[in-house]
Amino acid sequence: MKPYRKNDFPVAEIRRFLEPGPIVLVSSAWRREINIMTMGWHTVMEFTPSLVGCVISGANHSFELIRRSKECVINIPTVELAKAVVGIGNSSGRDTDKFSAFGLTPVPGTKVRAPLIAECYANLECRLVDARLVKTYNFFIFEVVMAHAATTPRYPRTLHYRGDGVFMLSGTSTRRYRRLFRPDML
Amino acid sequence: MKPYRKNDFPVAEIRRFLEPGPIVLVSSAWRREINIMTMGWHTVMEFTPSLVGCVISGANHSFELIRRSKECVINIPTVELAKAVVGIGNSSGRDTDKFSAFGLTPVPGTKVRAPLIAECYANLECRLVDARLVKTYNFFIFEVVMAHAATTPRYPRTLHYRGDGVFMLSGTSTRRYRRLFRPDML
Repeated sequence: MKPYRKNDFPVAEIRRFLEPGPIVLVSSAWRREINIMTMGWHTVMEFTPSLVGCVISGANHSFELIRRSKECVINIPTVELAKAVVGIGNSSGRDTDKFSAFGLTPVPGTKVRAPLIAECYANLECRLVDARLVKTYNFFIFEVVMAHAATTPRYPRTLHYRGDGVFMLSGTSTRRYRRLFRPDML
Repeated sequence: MKPYRKNDFPVAEIRRFLEPGPIVLVSSAWRREINIMTMGWHTVMEFTPSLVGCVISGANHSFELIRRSKECVINIPTVELAKAVVGIGNSSGRDTDKFSAFGLTPVPGTKVRAPLIAECYANLECRLVDARLVKTYNFFIFEVVMAHAATTPRYPRTLHYRGDGVFMLSGTSTRRYRRLFRPDML
């Protein structure tokens, strides 16, 4: 698929991409290695600083790359990448160059060494800010230090994993209740 | 709306409801008070024990009820409850009985004192197991100790919040890739 055309995006507003709960691709770099993993266990934790918490199992090759480099990029794939998302989750960076195996294009980040994935709708450059829960839960807390996002389509068709090989798709149907919200609750 | 008919559901498999990233309703009880809040910042953290992490801001009336009782129920609403979800997020338990204000039915839990919401598709009874990050991030880690879920419809139409008053809807479209997965990766 073609890369998305992207603009800089305000880091305080990245809940727009993560709070709906899509499966994401996490890219990382350490020394000469780069890798990608599929990740579904993440949550927004704060607007400013822009914090994201996520579980990265120690069984993943990416775990050590991220723990050592203290950086990663969280990339938001859309439905066109569904098979790559599954393939990336099923293979290991120990023996596979995933960018080349899945036809993805690495793009240099502006604030981290980990590469962005051009074919993803949005890219969030992250720095590790709290590793207190890594030992107990493999839970990493990152600050999003730079964000890039496409503007078309307005509502990307993201993949939301239910387990057991089934993804739910988002993006075609919305409900808008802006007028019902207290302004400070938006 | 009518309550969902529910069965007991294995706690190790509740990722099915939470990993796709729906907005949820959190119910709590402390002494004579019960309350409900809307919550969008949550993640699965482990299968067994069944762990869920989430951010509950100290600005919420529910914060103290949950901190003191060390319990809550995470309820999964579907699109029929969209206006209640917004209303619950816009009002405070300090001056509103939200069950009565939004026409919801409290049902006693089996393992916690916090009530289940009958009109939600699934109910996850939770006990607080790690409060280490409450002080820094309002981040609570719960163990799901009992789960109840409807079986119809198979794919519930859940609400996924993007900020700015806009919800994306799930449930009508899926992609199934079970055969592409390594068995241990499902």
